Amino acid sequence: MKKAVCLISGGMDSYVAAAEASKKGYSIHALTVNYGQKNNRELSSARKIALCLKAEKHAILDLDLSWTASALTNSSIDIPNGFSASDIPPTYVPARNTIFISLAMAMAETVNADSIYIGVNAVDFSGYPDCRPEYIKRFQALIDVATKKTSGGGIIKLQAPLINMSKLEIIKEGLKLEVDFSLTWSCYRSGKMPCGRCPSCLLRAKGFRQAGVKDPLIVLMKKEKNCT
Amino acid sequence: MKKAVCLISGGMDSYVAAAEASKKGYSIHALTVNYGQKNNRELSSARKIALCLKAEKHAILDLDLSWTASALTNSSIDIPNGFSASDIPPTYVPARNTIFISLAMAMAETVNADSIYIGVNAVDFSGYPDCRPEYIKRFQALIDVATKKTSGGGIIKLQAPLINMSKLEIIKEGLKLEVDFSLTWSCYRSGKMPCGRCPSCLLRAKGFRQAGVKDPLIVLMKKEKNCT
Repeated sequence: MKKAVCLISGGMDSYVAAAEASKKGYSIHALTVNYGQKNNRELSSARKIALCLKAEKHAILDLDLSWTASALTNSSIDIPNGFSASDIPPTYVPARNTIFISLAMAMAETVNADSIYIGVNAVDFSGYPDCRPEYIKRFQALIDVATKKTSGGGIIKLQAPLINMSKLEIIKEGLKLEVDFSLTWSCYRSGKMPCGRCPSCLLRAKGFRQAGVKDPLIVLMKKEKNCT
Repeated sequence: MKKAVCLISGGMDSYVAAAEASKKGYSIHALTVNYGQKNNRELSSARKIALCLKAEKHAILDLDLSWTASALTNSSIDIPNGFSASDIPPTYVPARNTIFISLAMAMAETVNADSIYIGVNAVDFSGYPDCRPEYIKRFQALIDVATKKTSGGGIIKLQAPLINMSKLEIIKEGLKLEVDFSLTWSCYRSGKMPCGRCPSCLLRAKGFRQAGVKDPLIVLMKKEKNCT
């Protein structure tokens, strides 16, 4: 059985990307990084998602990036409400995807996986330099010379199946793949409920609104609230 | 003052590369990774080297890579004596340089450094895929699209000044730069003295022999031994 290392954050996109890998018959080796993110609630979502995907293994690596200049990691930079006017939003974490993909490369070489799946997409968060098609293309060119060949004789393939999708399209794709969005956490904050004000909450809400579907996480949380 | 993030392992090559940066007038931001290497004695060498280089800061990041398939990290794979007959030696750590450079990218973006210095070289350890000129070239192409521009308006430059040097040439260059090789640790094992049998010890000994110089680390250790 072919193996894929799937980067799972706990959010919607990486779950849908991993569900694509699963649909294609890959055995899933899930990889999550506990990097000091303020929204560390996403880690418990990542655990549930990996279970739901029947991952063969799920590694959660500790790597403290709280020293990076980002609103997601650094206690001296506030998480913004609403969308940023700047080219690169303050929630951009320097080199985060490069770090995550490099860790996935190490895992892919170790377990002899032929693919790495990542949920990046360029449409909604076009301000992030490491979410664009050209970035993925150049990372593949790097992998081509940076790693051992897989036992099948090939090179590890970096798969970003959502790269050209909007949040609406990702939600539609996820629903088609029977992804359970109630397991996911998108909010940049780690409250009891999603804050509803950060860029990630706003984007998620817009996606579900456009899809004409109630966000299953909100539905679940309201139900739980009524039960307690 | 221009800033450079210098990857410092505790060995000779990264020290010489960082000394090049220092000579060029860069303020040094040293970065070392405690990745579960069996030769963790190199970490105390890295501390001494950063001090000797008058680094503005020295970060030692913890990242457990003991799960990777490598003789340097994995307790079930022995460190070899002598050189390997295989194309890629068992001491190769999957994606290690890619991980280290990506962490250096995060630091360079955070402190607004314009360069990353790494001590890789292709001549002696040509079996390592991530030590070759083509690897450095493609990583630069990735950095060009993966990061914010520096405040000077440029892109972070990946500098590998030793890429085409043999161990002999690196030693000569280090001596010219007044590098104190007695601070460095190359042995893949972490004994009281270098083992003298692993590939790294053999390569180091050959380099000093060719240079017609006694290895300052061995001289120092013998002296200390006689004093105790």
